[in-house]
Amino acid sequence: MLQIQPARLMTDLRELAQIGHYKTGVHRPTYSAQDMAARQWVCDRMTEAGLQPAIDGIGNIFGRNPHSGPRLIVGSHVETQPYAGWLDGAMGVIYGLELVRAFAESPACADFAVDVAAWADEEGYFGAFLGSRSFFGEVTEEMLDAARDGGGKPLRAALAEAGLASRPRLQIDPREDYVGYLEAHVEQGDYLEQSELQIGIVTGSVGIHLFKIKATGQQNHAGTTRMAVRKDAGVAMMRLWHAIDQKFAAVAGPRSVWTVGRITMTPGSPSVIPGDAEMLLQFRDPDPAQLTLFDGALTDLVAKADADGPCSVTLEIVAKTRPDTMDARFQDALERAADEMAPGRHMRMPSAAGHDAQVIARHIPAAMLFVPSIGGISHHYTEDTKEEDIVAGCQVFVKAVEYIMRDSS
Amino acid sequence: MLQIQPARLMTDLRELAQIGHYKTGVHRPTYSAQDMAARQWVCDRMTEAGLQPAIDGIGNIFGRNPHSGPRLIVGSHVETQPYAGWLDGAMGVIYGLELVRAFAESPACADFAVDVAAWADEEGYFGAFLGSRSFFGEVTEEMLDAARDGGGKPLRAALAEAGLASRPRLQIDPREDYVGYLEAHVEQGDYLEQSELQIGIVTGSVGIHLFKIKATGQQNHAGTTRMAVRKDAGVAMMRLWHAIDQKFAAVAGPRSVWTVGRITMTPGSPSVIPGDAEMLLQFRDPDPAQLTLFDGALTDLVAKADADGPCSVTLEIVAKTRPDTMDARFQDALERAADEMAPGRHMRMPSAAGHDAQVIARHIPAAMLFVPSIGGISHHYTEDTKEEDIVAGCQVFVKAVEYIMRDSS
Repeated sequence: MLQIQPARLMTDLRELAQIGHYKTGVHRPTYSAQDMAARQWVCDRMTEAGLQPAIDGIGNIFGRNPHSGPRLIVGSHVETQPYAGWLDGAMGVIYGLELVRAFAESPACADFAVDVAAWADEEGYFGAFLGSRSFFGEVTEEMLDAARDGGGKPLRAALAEAGLASRPRLQIDPREDYVGYLEAHVEQGDYLEQSELQIGIVTGSVGIHLFKIKATGQQNHAGTTRMAVRKDAGVAMMRLWHAIDQKFAAVAGPRSVWTVGRITMTPGSPSVIPGDAEMLLQFRDPDPAQLTLFDGALTDLVAKADADGPCSVTLEIVAKTRPDTMDARFQDALERAADEMAPGRHMRMPSAAGHDAQVIARHIPAAMLFVPSIGGISHHYTEDTKEEDIVAGCQVFVKAVEYIMRDSS
Repeated sequence: MLQIQPARLMTDLRELAQIGHYKTGVHRPTYSAQDMAARQWVCDRMTEAGLQPAIDGIGNIFGRNPHSGPRLIVGSHVETQPYAGWLDGAMGVIYGLELVRAFAESPACADFAVDVAAWADEEGYFGAFLGSRSFFGEVTEEMLDAARDGGGKPLRAALAEAGLASRPRLQIDPREDYVGYLEAHVEQGDYLEQSELQIGIVTGSVGIHLFKIKATGQQNHAGTTRMAVRKDAGVAMMRLWHAIDQKFAAVAGPRSVWTVGRITMTPGSPSVIPGDAEMLLQFRDPDPAQLTLFDGALTDLVAKADADGPCSVTLEIVAKTRPDTMDARFQDALERAADEMAPGRHMRMPSAAGHDAQVIARHIPAAMLFVPSIGGISHHYTEDTKEEDIVAGCQVFVKAVEYIMRDSS
């Protein structure tokens, strides 16, 4: 009978968390010594589990399953945000390892060809979803030449330091019969916790709209310029932001989120009235209609701010991604497994964060499973999930893959 | 009869504006080659006017009058803000030159001992009012050792490059009978222009209170963190700023100004909820009671924001300067001269900007005269004043000094 070994799963997770250990979390930036050590550790475990692992020219670990027949890829990533949590990414990779081991130990599943991947730079130090995009042919050599991290370091230099510069990049082989991709991840939010549930079956990802808003006024002396004649770009931006904050709250959907992550004022001196101000506003929603509603509200508010003066205000679209949908058959398999392993403790839900599964869904069927994050905390070293939830998540994940592989045979 | 020569005055002003000429303004940062050339030019004009000029170890030009008896200092500064106006500082120095020439040509005034100064670095590249503070004994050698400009360049290095390193610093001689200090300046605001007046008799300077406000929340994922559980330091700061903006407008006095010159959010990424936000708030008022009222309102609003949560908010005093008063007898002399030379076209008013006269008022009686700034624009190359106002200002200034010197004999 197919079953995972919870102790083995937890031991692996805790061992991997020692590499780049920081307080109760880990610090493994992409291509750092800690990241590369973690990749080597994963390769060693893959070999023990009977896979044939390789690290490619972008840092992807691909653990090829020697069995033949319809293939499934499972995985996630092992690098982390700076000083971040021990489960974000790592859990999905270790689920993959445990799945391969449990399948090998179960006669009915021993021949299933499940590959395990740890995609490089999901966390986007050098580019969004660089590893999974590379594997699915979305990344050219020119893109690699141009890529730099936030400090200006070229990707090429980082790859050379990590010993990866001369390695070829692996890409999906179109001759193989790939069934699809499955990824498990911590939720990073608190919907599951608030609902007192254990398993999230991801229906799709939210759409993300990102805008740059600029206000242009008149830089002037903060002492001698009367309030009545000022054209203060900072004040214009603050008032607009306040109006957005109120309007969005009034029209928000149940899963809407909106964030001003950055605001800058020029010249930024205490005695100078800012002549220019700039703001990054992002909103996310699983519902395309809600995104459209926000777009319209924002456009109206910016137009009103510009018309009201005294500063001119402009709106620039930086990026828009559409909500997308996970594979329906995979969702059903996850739900069937959840009904069996965690009855009454699961729900379907969108993902509010970005994951490699979204990239991969553009190429092959893909789906995701979430387990709860304690307090909804992520990208912080205090990120955690109850052990019982980690174990239950793995049981559901492995069972769902069994169903998918059986259906695909 | 005492009278200035408007053509000579304007010719000097225009000639000085050629040194470091930029568009319709000038670029003469403190100790730059342009600044030092301007200083040498001023020394040459001083010598022609019968003064004995010297540039001291901090860059002050002190044009000593060879006459004896009660002494008055008049002056301003010749360096400028980057790419700024042609009159800010320069006008007060040229008024001094024209005053000495007009006095020399008037038998009744020919023996008055009026020194002319051009204080170094009033614009504060290396420190606020460095030159005048040095002349009045407020600047130690240790302060000079420590001083750096905004780019980190040591003052000592700048003085060495300007050829000033080995020169002694001049200080006021306590054995001299100094009557006081008079300075003329462009208003840099638009109160005079709005009032359709020509002459401002400065009653004192505004008090300036500068605060740093900090909000501390919880840095988190901008996708997965529900609005209801966020602790967004940026939003907390925006809401507080909005409340300050409304409250201050409701309780402001006729000359109150308040400015948020800088706001920063950490980490400043579009997909991360800011965990920390910081804001610089400055307000100015000539009325101490109004400053106290603003202090109280701000303290209350910050306390309320902190109590309301979810972010903690703190208020830190960065600096507080008190409103100060110009010498009453000098103000009367300026008013008497204005009544005569610009009848019905003058008013008493506070200075909303900082000037060397404020520093000097701590040591000897001091006063200031303003002429209008077109559109209230300053610290910008479009800064300008009507020629008739420049001339009228000089006439009033020279006449007022005559009254003061006569009263002091």
